[in-house]
Amino acid sequence: MVGASLGIKLTQLNHHVRMGSRTANNEKAEEFIKQAGMGASQGTFADAAAYGEIVFNCTKGDGALDAIKAAGEENLKGKILVDVSNPLDFSKGMPPILIPALSNTNSLGEEIQKRLPGTHVIKALNTVNCMLMVNPASVPGLHDVFICGNDETAKAKVTEILKSFGWISIIDVGDITAARATEMMLPLWIRLMMKFQSPNFNFKIVK
Amino acid sequence: MVGASLGIKLTQLNHHVRMGSRTANNEKAEEFIKQAGMGASQGTFADAAAYGEIVFNCTKGDGALDAIKAAGEENLKGKILVDVSNPLDFSKGMPPILIPALSNTNSLGEEIQKRLPGTHVIKALNTVNCMLMVNPASVPGLHDVFICGNDETAKAKVTEILKSFGWISIIDVGDITAARATEMMLPLWIRLMMKFQSPNFNFKIVK
Repeated sequence: MVGASLGIKLTQLNHHVRMGSRTANNEKAEEFIKQAGMGASQGTFADAAAYGEIVFNCTKGDGALDAIKAAGEENLKGKILVDVSNPLDFSKGMPPILIPALSNTNSLGEEIQKRLPGTHVIKALNTVNCMLMVNPASVPGLHDVFICGNDETAKAKVTEILKSFGWISIIDVGDITAARATEMMLPLWIRLMMKFQSPNFNFKIVK
Repeated sequence: MVGASLGIKLTQLNHHVRMGSRTANNEKAEEFIKQAGMGASQGTFADAAAYGEIVFNCTKGDGALDAIKAAGEENLKGKILVDVSNPLDFSKGMPPILIPALSNTNSLGEEIQKRLPGTHVIKALNTVNCMLMVNPASVPGLHDVFICGNDETAKAKVTEILKSFGWISIIDVGDITAARATEMMLPLWIRLMMKFQSPNFNFKIVK
């Protein structure tokens, strides 16, 4: 769902997008191509990783590291990987906890960076719902998206993409270890989503 | 510092405030009385707990559970305890992590509630700097303070106190387990504080 949302937006912006999945030619991938139209293709995680200049990790947090492995370190070398996922553990019910090994002293963003030392991992968009990711105006007024990562050039490129999605206020919170902080926003985000019965809200930093 | 800030505000609002510390008659307690004036007194944690109808825990997170123990379960029975502290662990440098045993699947607010089953523990104000706690207008416009706890009457009383401080937008995020979520805001808060070189900012939920 997150991948389709981002993929459709990116094709609308005239990018070529290859959606990767565990198995190629699955029903959702075919549906994505139907909706995204021109510029859209699909394949395995490895196919998508090899194809893209910039790769988005839109998998569920508990499957993210397996997906990265399937995508292949070599296929991702020298590229930007935008990690929008969150290390949520729903095994104990709602609201979820964060996967303990990927929280507080670590994060999913950092762990992906450790496993892909030749890739520029940028954490972004993980604190907003996927509809809002690509249409920030669906929540009125100014509100913020957070970005972090180790490479300034990569961060600048991802910032340009976020601007092309309509984001105006993009807050750089530092290197990839700051993914700990933005991933730890999720427990509040989820409780607010349950309270509001809607994911159509966002955080804003007021100064 | 947090206790003095809240205590001075409360005396300005005509409450009687007793500041508790590990040892009575210490320098900071005397300074507090000088600044707070009429209605202010000081003593041990147990003195303050016995004196107050509503008790604020303003200790450092890593000393909070010892302070609660020193305050005494009996002294706090049937009362409201407002926990404004955060389980920050600075032992590995800046930025701090959360104390592992008090994060993700637990929180300081919850742990205090477990240790004081006869007390209504309300988590509030822990996501804002102590100057902002008592003067929300120091950050312009509307922004939010979060509150959670198990007892609705206690939450309503604390909400009234927050309103008397000037808070307009007070978001009830649920029972005391929601302290996990508001305490997990601190890693981002601290990184933003380091980025802005100022604690004078706040979160706002935009819908």
